[in-house]
Formats: sequence, C-alpha cells, structure tokens
Amino acid sequence: MSRLIRGMVKKFGLPPGALLHTGKTYIDIPHMRILEYNADDAVEKTLHSTEDLGTFISSPTVTWIRVIGLHNVELIEKIGQCFAIHPLVLEDILNTNHRSKMEDYGEYLFFILKSFNNADDADEMDSEQVSIILGKNYVISFQEKGDELFAPVRERINSAKGRIRKSGADYLAYALMDTIVDKYFVILEDVGEKIEDLEDSLVIQPGQNALQEIHVLKRKMLHFRKALWPLRETMNSLSRGESALVQEGTVLYLRDTYDHTVQLVDALETYRDILSGMLDIYLSSVSNRMNQIMKVLTIISTIFIPLTFIAGVYGMNFKNMPELDFAWGYPAVLLIMVVISLAMIRLFQTRKWL
Amino acid sequence: MSRLIRGMVKKFGLPPGALLHTGKTYIDIPHMRILEYNADDAVEKTLHSTEDLGTFISSPTVTWIRVIGLHNVELIEKIGQCFAIHPLVLEDILNTNHRSKMEDYGEYLFFILKSFNNADDADEMDSEQVSIILGKNYVISFQEKGDELFAPVRERINSAKGRIRKSGADYLAYALMDTIVDKYFVILEDVGEKIEDLEDSLVIQPGQNALQEIHVLKRKMLHFRKALWPLRETMNSLSRGESALVQEGTVLYLRDTYDHTVQLVDALETYRDILSGMLDIYLSSVSNRMNQIMKVLTIISTIFIPLTFIAGVYGMNFKNMPELDFAWGYPAVLLIMVVISLAMIRLFQTRKWL
Amino acid sequence: MSRLIRGMVKKFGLPPGALLHTGKTYIDIPHMRILEYNADDAVEKTLHSTEDLGTFISSPTVTWIRVIGLHNVELIEKIGQCFAIHPLVLEDILNTNHRSKMEDYGEYLFFILKSFNNADDADEMDSEQVSIILGKNYVISFQEKGDELFAPVRERINSAKGRIRKSGADYLAYALMDTIVDKYFVILEDVGEKIEDLEDSLVIQPGQNALQEIHVLKRKMLHFRKALWPLRETMNSLSRGESALVQEGTVLYLRDTYDHTVQLVDALETYRDILSGMLDIYLSSVSNRMNQIMKVLTIISTIFIPLTFIAGVYGMNFKNMPELDFAWGYPAVLLIMVVISLAMIRLFQTRKWL
Amino acid sequence: MSRLIRGMVKKFGLPPGALLHTGKTYIDIPHMRILEYNADDAVEKTLHSTEDLGTFISSPTVTWIRVIGLHNVELIEKIGQCFAIHPLVLEDILNTNHRSKMEDYGEYLFFILKSFNNADDADEMDSEQVSIILGKNYVISFQEKGDELFAPVRERINSAKGRIRKSGADYLAYALMDTIVDKYFVILEDVGEKIEDLEDSLVIQPGQNALQEIHVLKRKMLHFRKALWPLRETMNSLSRGESALVQEGTVLYLRDTYDHTVQLVDALETYRDILSGMLDIYLSSVSNRMNQIMKVLTIISTIFIPLTFIAGVYGMNFKNMPELDFAWGYPAVLLIMVVISLAMIRLFQTRKWL
Amino acid sequence: MSRLIRGMVKKFGLPPGALLHTGKTYIDIPHMRILEYNADDAVEKTLHSTEDLGTFISSPTVTWIRVIGLHNVELIEKIGQCFAIHPLVLEDILNTNHRSKMEDYGEYLFFILKSFNNADDADEMDSEQVSIILGKNYVISFQEKGDELFAPVRERINSAKGRIRKSGADYLAYALMDTIVDKYFVILEDVGEKIEDLEDSLVIQPGQNALQEIHVLKRKMLHFRKALWPLRETMNSLSRGESALVQEGTVLYLRDTYDHTVQLVDALETYRDILSGMLDIYLSSVSNRMNQIMKVLTIISTIFIPLTFIAGVYGMNFKNMPELDFAWGYPAVLLIMVVISLAMIRLFQTRKWL
Repeated sequence: MSRLIRGMVKKFGLPPGALLHTGKTYIDIPHMRILEYNADDAVEKTLHSTEDLGTFISSPTVTWIRVIGLHNVELIEKIGQCFAIHPLVLEDILNTNHRSKMEDYGEYLFFILKSFNNADDADEMDSEQVSIILGKNYVISFQEKGDELFAPVRERINSAKGRIRKSGADYLAYALMDTIVDKYFVILEDVGEKIEDLEDSLVIQPGQNALQEIHVLKRKMLHFRKALWPLRETMNSLSRGESALVQEGTVLYLRDTYDHTVQLVDALETYRDILSGMLDIYLSSVSNRMNQIMKVLTIISTIFIPLTFIAGVYGMNFKNMPELDFAWGYPAVLLIMVVISLAMIRLFQTRKWL
Repeated sequence: MSRLIRGMVKKFGLPPGALLHTGKTYIDIPHMRILEYNADDAVEKTLHSTEDLGTFISSPTVTWIRVIGLHNVELIEKIGQCFAIHPLVLEDILNTNHRSKMEDYGEYLFFILKSFNNADDADEMDSEQVSIILGKNYVISFQEKGDELFAPVRERINSAKGRIRKSGADYLAYALMDTIVDKYFVILEDVGEKIEDLEDSLVIQPGQNALQEIHVLKRKMLHFRKALWPLRETMNSLSRGESALVQEGTVLYLRDTYDHTVQLVDALETYRDILSGMLDIYLSSVSNRMNQIMKVLTIISTIFIPLTFIAGVYGMNFKNMPELDFAWGYPAVLLIMVVISLAMIRLFQTRKWL
Repeated sequence: MSRLIRGMVKKFGLPPGALLHTGKTYIDIPHMRILEYNADDAVEKTLHSTEDLGTFISSPTVTWIRVIGLHNVELIEKIGQCFAIHPLVLEDILNTNHRSKMEDYGEYLFFILKSFNNADDADEMDSEQVSIILGKNYVISFQEKGDELFAPVRERINSAKGRIRKSGADYLAYALMDTIVDKYFVILEDVGEKIEDLEDSLVIQPGQNALQEIHVLKRKMLHFRKALWPLRETMNSLSRGESALVQEGTVLYLRDTYDHTVQLVDALETYRDILSGMLDIYLSSVSNRMNQIMKVLTIISTIFIPLTFIAGVYGMNFKNMPELDFAWGYPAVLLIMVVISLAMIRLFQTRKWL
Repeated sequence: MSRLIRGMVKKFGLPPGALLHTGKTYIDIPHMRILEYNADDAVEKTLHSTEDLGTFISSPTVTWIRVIGLHNVELIEKIGQCFAIHPLVLEDILNTNHRSKMEDYGEYLFFILKSFNNADDADEMDSEQVSIILGKNYVISFQEKGDELFAPVRERINSAKGRIRKSGADYLAYALMDTIVDKYFVILEDVGEKIEDLEDSLVIQPGQNALQEIHVLKRKMLHFRKALWPLRETMNSLSRGESALVQEGTVLYLRDTYDHTVQLVDALETYRDILSGMLDIYLSSVSNRMNQIMKVLTIISTIFIPLTFIAGVYGMNFKNMPELDFAWGYPAVLLIMVVISLAMIRLFQTRKWL
Repeated sequence: MSRLIRGMVKKFGLPPGALLHTGKTYIDIPHMRILEYNADDAVEKTLHSTEDLGTFISSPTVTWIRVIGLHNVELIEKIGQCFAIHPLVLEDILNTNHRSKMEDYGEYLFFILKSFNNADDADEMDSEQVSIILGKNYVISFQEKGDELFAPVRERINSAKGRIRKSGADYLAYALMDTIVDKYFVILEDVGEKIEDLEDSLVIQPGQNALQEIHVLKRKMLHFRKALWPLRETMNSLSRGESALVQEGTVLYLRDTYDHTVQLVDALETYRDILSGMLDIYLSSVSNRMNQIMKVLTIISTIFIPLTFIAGVYGMNFKNMPELDFAWGYPAVLLIMVVISLAMIRLFQTRKWL
C-alpha cells in the first residue's frame, strides 16, 4: 500500500531527470529484443549492444524494440540518447510507481500503462508498469517482468495474422495497449466470479470471514480503480486522434479500445456497488442474528425470573407461613407457576416475538 | 453478474475484428427477413442467401433487414461485406455484453441498445442486445431473441399507420429505438408496483424477507441503471442531429425519445431513493423492536432481582435470625416486596419506560 | 409513486404523436376560455367551437386561450391544427406525467410546468401539469384542474394592474410561470413550518411516530425535488433570452423568476439537510435511551447477583456449616452484603455510570 | 428556519415589482446619510428629503448614499426613481430573504450580500441583508440594521487612510464588500474555537449535551454554507472584471476578496468535515462505553449464575442428599465454587475480556 | 485547527494592502541572502541593507533572493518597493494562512506554496508557507522557517549539477517548487507506513486506541488534502505555460511536477479510502466481539436459569412435597438437570450459536 509512492522518496534531493530504477527486480538480466517487419517479412533478434540501434530509425520497416527488465539504467540511458528521448521520459520509465498517462513530445508519443497479471494473489496486486514510446516507424516497449505479456502480438506479427503486418507503428502500439486492456477483462471476470461465490456463501451462512473477504475484495477494487480510471483517460485522449503519429485508420481501433476501458470502469463500479450491498446484507444479517439471540435470552429470563422468585418466597424460613402447611399448597404453587408461564408465552405470541 | 464482461474474456489474444459470438443462444436457427417499403407499398420476405442483398442498396425504397439470432457468424460476416461494414462493428454486434452506444462511420450510423423483456424473473435481468445499422436508405437490425419486440413497428409499416411509410430510413431507425425505450416504461412501472407492495407490507410487519426483497430490488435498479444511463447518453448525442443521415423532421422525434430516457432515468433515481428510505425505515423499525424487547427484559429483571434477593435472605439457615420468629415477619416481608415493586414501576413510569 | 411513469405505459405500441389523455380527470367538462386584451381594453369570453380561433392569430391584440380539463382529446387536436402545433407537443400536453421542460419550435415556445396546490394532503403530492404555448401574439395554457390557479393574473389583466396590459404575449407567459413558481413558496413555507414543529416535538419526546413523520417529509422532499430541479433548468434556459419570441424587457423578469427557482431549490436542499440531521438526532437519542435502560439493568443486576449468591450459600442445607450457628453470623452476613453494595456503587461512580 | 423563504409568501398574487418590506424591523426610523468625497475633501451629512439626490449624479465627486432601515418603502421608491433603478431591484432590496447575487443592469451593478454580526446567539443566525448599487460615480448601500458595520470604511474615508479617497466609486463598493467578507473571518474563527473546545471536552467526557452541541454547530455550518457559497460565486463573477463600471486597478483588489471567500469556504468545509469526524468519535465512544457496561454485566452474571445454581442445589430439601451430611461437604462446595470462579476469570482473560 | 483563518482576524478593519505579519515566529532574526549565478559562476552573500537590491534587476545573471523569517515587515516593504511588487502581494506574503495559489501580475508571477516538514508531530501539522516571486531574471523566495528546505537547490547551483546553472530564473522557480512537492512524497510515505502498521495491529487486536489513531490519521489527511488540492491546481495552471516568463523548455519540467501532484492527490485519496475501510473493519470487529459476549451471556443464562428454578422449587419449605421423601428424588432431579442442559446445548448447536 505504501508502495503507492515509495519510488518517489528515494529520489528526494536529486535533480530532475536523474535516472534511478525505483521498482522491484523481477528478472535476472535486463535484455533487449528487436522485431523488424513489413508486409512481406518479419525478423526477430536479440540485441546486445545499443550501437546498431541508429540504423533502425532510418529503415522504412516497422521496428519494435522490447526492453525487458528495467534495472540496467545505463542501457536505458543509451536508448534515450539514440532516439533523442527527453530525460524526464526516461526518469518516468524507471520510476515504476506512475499512474497511466500519455504525453505528446512531438517526435514521439509516450505512454505509461499498468498491467495486472492475475487476481489470485493476496492483497498486494501484482501489477507491472509498461512504458511505450511510439515514434514515426518504431515502437519501444519497456517491461518490468518477463516476455509473456506481449507473446500474442509477437505471434500475430510472425504469422502475419490480421492486419498488423500491413499497418504502421501506430497500429503496433495500439495492439500492445489492446493486449493490456484485454488482460483486465480476464482479471475482472475472475474477481466477478469470486464475488458471486462469496454472495452464495453469504446467503447460506454469514461468518466472520465473509466480512474479511468482502473487505479484501473492496481493497482490490480500490487498486483496480486507481489503475483503470487513468487508463481510461489515457485511451480517451489517444482515441481523439490528435497526434500526427496516429493514422486515421488506427483511430477507429483506438476508439474501440477506449470503449473497452469504459466498459471495464463500468463493470468495476458495478462490482463496487454490489460489494457495498453485500456488506449491508452481511451487517443486517449479523444484527438479525443478534436480535434472535437477545429474544431467546429475554424469553427465557422473563419466564423463569418470576417463577424463581415464587420458589424463593416459599423457600423462606419464617415460622409463621400458613401456606406451607396447607396440603394443597405445593400443587397450588406449581399450578400458579404453570399459569404464569402460559400467560407469558401467550403475551410473547401476541407481540409476535415467537 | 459476472456476465458483465464474460464475452470479452473468450476473445483474449485474438486480433481485433475477429468475429466470435459471445452471448447465449436463444433461438434455433438464425434467419434474416427483409421488409421493403415506400409510401405506396410494403413487401416482406425471408431471405435465405445474402447474394441478393446488394440490390437493396441501390433501390430507392426503404429496406429493413432484420437478422434474428446472432450465432451464424458467417451470415453476419457476409452482410458486413455486402454493406461495407467495418469489422469492429461486426465484432461489437456479436459481442452481446456491450453497453449502449452510437458511432458515426460516415456512410452509416451504428447503434447498440439494450432491451429488457420483463422484470418478473429472478435476479438475472433478461436483457437482449439489439444492434442497429442505419444507412442512407436501409436499416439493418440484429436481435438475439425472437421476433416479437419489433412486431408493432412491422404492423405499422404493413398497415401504413402514422407517418412511417412516408418517411425515410432514419424514421424507421427512430421507430425501432422508440419501441425499445417504451418497453422500459412497462418494466419500470412493474418495478414501481413491486416497490409499492413492498412498502405496504413493510408498514404492516417488517420481516427478514422484506430486507431480502429490498436488496433484490436494489440489485435490479443497479442493472437498469447500467443500461439506462448509456442509453440516455446515446439518445442525447443522436438527438443533437449532427449526422447527415438523420433528416431534420426526424430530429424532433428523436428529441422526444431522448426526453423519455431522461424521464426514465429520473424515475429510476427516484425509485432508488425510495428504496434507500425503505431500508432506513426497515432498519430503524427492527432496532425499535429490539429496544422494546430489551425494555421488557430490563423491567422484569429489575423488579424481580431485588425481590428474589430478599426471599434469598430469609431462606438462609442461620440459627439466629430473629425476624423469622416474628408472627408478622412473613406478611411484613411480602408487604415490603409489594412496596418495592410499586416503587420500581413508578420509577419506570417517571422515566417514560412504560 | 408508480404514478411516475404510468401514463407512458398505456401508450406502448402506439405510433408517436398518437393522442391519448393519460392523467386523472379532475373536472367534469373540459372547456376553453378566451381573454383578448391590449393596453386599452380586455375582453373575456367562453368559446364553444374552435372555428373562430383562426381570427385571433391575425389580430394585433394579445390573446390568452385557456383550456381547462384535458380529457377532450378532440378539442386539443383541433387547437393543434388551428395553430399548427406539432403532434408531439399535443402528445406531451395530454401525457400528464412529464417533467418540466422548455422546447423551442421556432414559431412558438412550448413549456411544461408542474404546479402544486398544497402540502397538507397525505403522501401523494397533489400536483397539476400546466402546459403553455407562447406564440407571437397569443398564449395557450392547458390546465388539468379548475380555474383558480391563474385567477390573480386574470384579475391583473382585467383591472389593468402593473405593466401586464402594456406588454406582449411573452410577458403574459412570464406572469403565468411566475404565478406557478410563487405557489411553491407558499407550499415550501408550509413544509418548513411542519419541520419546525417536528423538531420541537423531537426535543421534548422522541417517539416512533416522529420517525414516521420524518420519513413522510423526506418523501415529500423527494417529490418536490423531482419537480423543482427541472423547473429551475427550464427557467434558466428561458432567462438566457435566446428566443426571438421573448422581448428584452421581459428577460429581466424571467431572470427574476429564475432567481426565485434557485432560491427554492436552495431552501429545499437546506430542508433536506435539516431532515437528515433530525434523523441523526432521533436515532442517537433512541440509542441513548437504550443505553440508559441497559445501564439500569446492569447496575441492578451486578449489585444483586452477588448478594443473592451469598444468600444462596447460607441457604444450603449442609449439616456442617459452622457460620450458621454463630450468634453474629446473620448480622455479619447482612453487613458484608451492605459493604459489597456500597463498594459496587462506589465502583460505578468511579466509572461515571451513575 | 422556515424564515428561509417567508418573505416570498407574503407577496403571493402581487404583480412583480410590487414593493413590500418583508423582513423584521431592527431600527426605529429609517434614515439616509450622504458621504461625498474626492482626493481633497470628504463631507458627510444626513439627508431628510430625496429631492436633492439628483444633484449628486452629475457631480464629479464620489457619492456614497447609505440607507439605514428598510421599512420606509416610499423612500426607497423615490431613490429608485431618482437613479432610474429597475423595479425588480427595489423589490429585491426590500425582500430580505435573498441569497447573495450580482446583477449587471448596464448603468449600474446591483449586489445583495449577507452579513453576519456574531455567532454567539442560539440557533437563529443573526444575519443582515446588505444591498449595494454601484453606479458611475455613486454607491448606494441599503442596510437593515444600525450604522456600525461600515464604520471602518467611513473612518478610512474621513481620515483619508489608504487609497480609498484617491479611488472611484468602484473601490468604495469593493471596500464595503471586503468589510462584509472580513467579518466572516471573525465569526468563523469564533466557531472554530467553539469546535476546539467541544473537541477537548469530547476527549474528557462525552456526554449527551456534546451531541446536542455538535448538532447545533452543524446547523450553524448549514446556515453559513447557504450564505458563503453564493457570496463566493458573486465575488468570482465580479472579480472577472467584465463590467465597465469596475476599473482595472480595482479588479486586483476584488480578486483578493474573492480569494478570501475561497479561503472561507475552504475553512467552512474543513470545519464540517471535522464536525462529522467528531460525531463519529462521539458515537463510537458511546458505543464503546455501552460495550464496557455489557461486558461487566456478562462477567458478573456468568461468574455468579453457575455458583448461585450450585448453592440452590444444596438448598434443596430432599431427604436423601448424602453430600449434606459429609463433614467436608460444605468446604468442598465452597472450594468447587472458587475453582469455577477462577476458571471463568481465566477464560475471560484468554478471550481478552478483562 | 482554528488556525485555519486566525491570521485574517487580526486584520479586521485595516485597509487592504496594510502589512501585518500574522504567523508564528520561528527564527530569531529575519535575514536576506543573495545567490547570483550564470553558467560560469555562482556567488552567494548575505545582504544587510536593501539599497543594493536595485543593481540585481538590471544585471544579466539570475538572482535568487532568499528572505528567511517574515516578521521584519519593514524589510519586506522595502523589497516590495524595490521590485515594484503590488501591496496585496506583500500582504499575502505576510499572512501565513493562505492556501496555495498562483497569480500573474504581468511583470512577475506570484506563488504561495505550503511545505510540510514532517508527519511525526501530533495533530497540529507542521506546515510552512513559502512565497515565491518570479521576475524576468530574478526569483525572490520568502520562508518562515530556517534554511534547510532549499539546501539541495543551493547545493545544485553551487556545484553546477544538472541543468540549473544553464537555465533561467523560471527553471530556478521550478526547482524550488519541485523540492516542495518532493517533500510531500517523503511525508505521505511516512503516513502510508503508519497506516500499514495500524492495519496490522487492527488484525491482531482491535483496541480503543486503534480508533483514536484512525481518527488522528483521518484528521491529518484532512490537513494534507487542504494543502494538496490547491497545490495541484496551482501546478496545473502553471504547467499550461501561458506566462511569457516561463520558457518552453521549462514547461515540460513543470508538467512533470504537476504530474507528481496528481500522483500525490491520488495516493492521498487512496489512503483516505483505506482509512474509511479500516474504520468499517474496526467497527464491525468491535460489534462482532460484542455479539460474542452477548452470546456467552445468553448461553450461560439460558442454561442455568431453568436449572436454578428447579433447585428453587425443591428448596421450598412446603410440608407436603412428596418428591422430597423419595429415595431417588435427588438423583432424579440431578438427572433432569443434566438432560435439560444437554438439550439446551443441542439446541444452541442446531442454531449454530456454538
């Protein structure tokens, strides 16, 4: 939770643009992979030095540079020099506590996106910051974790499925963002199923851990919300198609992705409302149960307390208690006790307590 | 509930524009019906192949193509090719978890609307996604379920009632949307009556299932809300009349429909407020009842506990208890007990507990 | 309550513009009265046929046509034809469940307003829908109920009080709307007094029916709110003076009326806040009362339970209980009991329970 | 409270612009004072007739006309004629239930402001309506109460302190408004201290009257809020400097005053949040106290109820109860009782109830 | 808390622009330090008189004048005259209760910012008001407290780290604001850790002081909120780059700082949500605990009350009680008691109370 801003603290006192990796380290060795393609061909390779990067800028093909692992600050600095990236952008790439955003630097667009891998873990959401730089004919993606997230996109490029090979760098950037957005559906669906299960168990037997689970889910929703709203905002400003780097044909696709984020936010808010409703149901069922317990206590007490009093009276040791000597004294008292009990029960029935 | 986004999950990893039907299947065989009309004549027929569709585009009459059942993906793909519909539109038609929206593709307008059939079913709202494509002289409607929804419109065309036969395709699209919106009134009226009934029963005897019912209704309201707000938005942007495909005369009618959605949202929000108020009444009447029970317990206890104590004292077996030997000891103690009881009752009356 | 939308349901399946009166019937025979005036003269008459209506359009005087009672659909249809009113307008006039609105049809402005007659009735608010059509030199008003509402305006025209006789049709329309808005002040003042009374009674003795009354008032506020917000909106768009039918001099007056609606909404929202605060006070005073009761129970119980136990001990019938034979056994036990009681009371005082 | 709108009710049925004083009467005789000044000189006098007023309009000096007391309707009407004030403005001046507002009538600006004198009184806030008319070279101020409010401004004019004598009528109007706004700081500070005191007393001992006081303060906040938000709005629209009557140099000062209203609203909202927090603390400390009481009851009961039962068993009068004859019967039972008590206490400790 | 507006009260009745220091005094002697630099050189000195200040305005180097301590009103007045600062600006500098703001005076920009030093103190947040005036080639900063806050910036200038020496006065102003914003991260991180600790302790054992701590943190959040939202607003309007005093290159950096404030506000609101959730958890765990206690009481009572009654019955002293003489009377009663206890326990198990 306090992770929200932890990265910023390390940097206090440094001049702006100072490069410092502030996130956790997920993989051993940061590396860089290149995927160059046009309608006809697609070539993939691992690049070990940044010296050859310059050649990709001038080539007419689309180049996708994937940087995996952010803790090699020097590598990222070199890429920055090579593509003339503003130091503040590099700083943002390395600071993995950013919210989603889009910035237009003229020559390139810069995106930060948050990707969630799954919702099964405990409290701590398992998010990954993905930064994307979209230039005229290249896309650079920066990832914290392994290679799997964008595997479907790579697969589509390699097998020339869909229109990706025929389209430009902007479509590639779109495809990456769309992949991240689609991932949210999988995760929200998961959460939705958990909510459904919880709801069922709430009807059967509301226990203390139901409360715990509702709160865990609410907390998760808070995290998703913090990720989804800026994502939606980002997709919205992108889908307005104001940048020259985004072609008109791609704008339709971006609008579609924006639409998906709207739907995600919608579902999220509905889940939040449902969780609030469940909390209400839980609390009032707990309080109903409490009422029942109190009712039982009251009924038992109000029936037996007067009876016990009567028994106590005839347990007194006064010499002069004539009733004690009557032959029918005992059965008469027993009878009175039965009558009082029945009257009490009758009263409770009238008041609908039974 | 988790249905909110289920459709999107199946598609994870597919390229955008990939066609996949994600909803339930309601009817056996998807089919397509054509209704061609102008001021003079109206002809209706079932079309078995998509090959003749092209002829309708060029004809001067208004053509209404109704596609009923969405699980024949191939059919929808062919219609798409025939009318040059964007693949993303076809994708949205097949994905039945969309929120209402309008998109302007220049040559045609694309609408998604949600129609509710009735409010009697249990939790799961019985919604149907209706997609409408409005072109220059044609309207294509896509429905998940049977033919009944638009029966009144067909009837009006066939019998030349109202101005529908004299108007263009835009008026037909309006008539379809108006039908869907009018259906909401029927359903909200139904919900309104349920709320009224529940309110009456709440006054008579608030039981545990009243709470259950309030929550079921609140949940329903959540579903309606999720459907109505985007519908209102859609009608609003449409009624601004910015598309060249919508004639000026029709805009007045669309404004009227927009007005209806405003009224629906208004009624919905009022119902929500009323339900919240009912929950408050329920909770405070439950807590009042609880207080009454506690009061009874306290009164009985506080009266009898001291009396029982006195009885206990004179039940002790000390040798040397002079009171026990007094002739008037027993009646005196009984008298003291009566006095204490009366004093207690008096006290309760002073404090307004009785 | 479900009246909110009832009118719309009857019309399901009818073509738009179909005329159908959906409200209740308040008066026996719908009729139509004409008031024609200019600075010099004012003539009032009842019109039995609609044929002469045409002559009023061309006359230079201001004509005020009052239609009282809406269930003569034919009459309203004829007026519509006479003044070239759009069928949707006529439909809205007949459907008495509309929210307040203004629509600009170029040749005329169309208003729907809600008038409340009094706040004394039970739950069901006694509202009346008033529709006003403002043309170049005529005003047509449609009312559900009798003639009283606009009596002050008629009086002012007949007695040439104020500037009404010297002004045009737009000022007449303003005068009608101002009358409706002023009525709200009377009613809100009434509600305000009820709230004040309730507040006083809440301080003296919070009973269960206080809760009931708070909820009744809250419900009323809900109804007023539903009426007042759209009214305010309507007056706002009107007071911007964008229509050519409203002269500049009248705009100042409309702005004044808009101001009044702002004040009404303001008062309404303050009342709502006050009611919420009262509910809070009620609930916490109920819970305080409960706490007091519990405290009494606890004090009585905790004092007497140990004492009763001691009495019980010496009530046991063991042969070998030496204390029982001591001469000072009984007084010693009584003393111990007194000491325990005093210690308990002291403890309660320390903990501020007494 | 119902004062909110009372003034409007008296006027129902009157034509707009009809003059009627609706407020309370605070001073005996309404009077009018004139203060005429320029950079060199300042002359103050009481004016008994309105006939000489005309001369002030044409004079190049700044004229400040102070009308004190509003119940001389005739006087206000004459001033209105003299300066060609719109009847609706005069109506607003006399109706002392208005919210703050600014209206631009071209030749003059019209302001209504609410001034609070102190916060010590009970519920009913002691507000005064001040109306200001700013013309080219004159300012007319209308006050309900005595002369003190603007004494500092008069003093500054008379002693030529600050830049007021060198500035125009717009600066004078600014000075008046600034005085009213500054008064709010004094009063809010007062309220702030009350809140602080209450908070301290809440920590020491939360009593029932703490609740009462919180609610009184919340109610006061409601009143301030109703006054402050429109005031802020008024100052905002004024500080935009769109009127030709306000010189550029004065706009900076008005912006400063607007800034103060923003700060006031800010403080107000913070106080409201603090009060809400205090209510929460109060309620949970009351409920904690309740829990403590319940705990004591439960502990005492659960310890003694079993013991009393045991005592009861051996108090039974069966002939055949062998334990009673054992020499060690009595001490054994006492021992068992002690063991049970200790076991119970141990259990409570384990469960952290002690 | 009432500190919110205290400064304004002292000034009531003074003319606007009157200079009066309203804050606390933190340091002994207010002083002024000069730092003059360009790309080549940086000279720092303490200035004892304001006479030489004029020379800095015309020099081409960047001049940073630091005023430390605000209670030398005369000094600030002289600086104001020297740089032609508007009196209202000087008034705002001296009044240390301002919210953050930016004002454009054409020749210079004026900022007020709030800096927090640490979050460890008790309730009272330890804030300092920093005012910054940005002119063409100079920056004047006014601080209440000592010199440490801007030490990193001075260090960067002196050691020519980063681009600060090569940039203009606008970059210096940016660097100062960035330092203040970065400080918030340190403090919010601190608060975040406190929240985390509290959350952990809440899971283990919710005590009364947990509630206290939650409320203290909520109050702190209120203070931060009051500081952060206007700060964000200020940075936003600054980052739009509309002033000629801010060069294009610096705007990117300001946008970055604005971004940080957005992130801060985001984190703050998340913390607030988390605290609200924690309060809910606390309250329901307290109420669960209460329920448990009640359950124990009820179980013990309902088991023993009937048993005690039976014991009481056979403790009565009636002559004629045949059961007492039966040899198996006593064991039979004991058996009955055991049976009743077991039945009760069985019942509780059925109802899931055990």
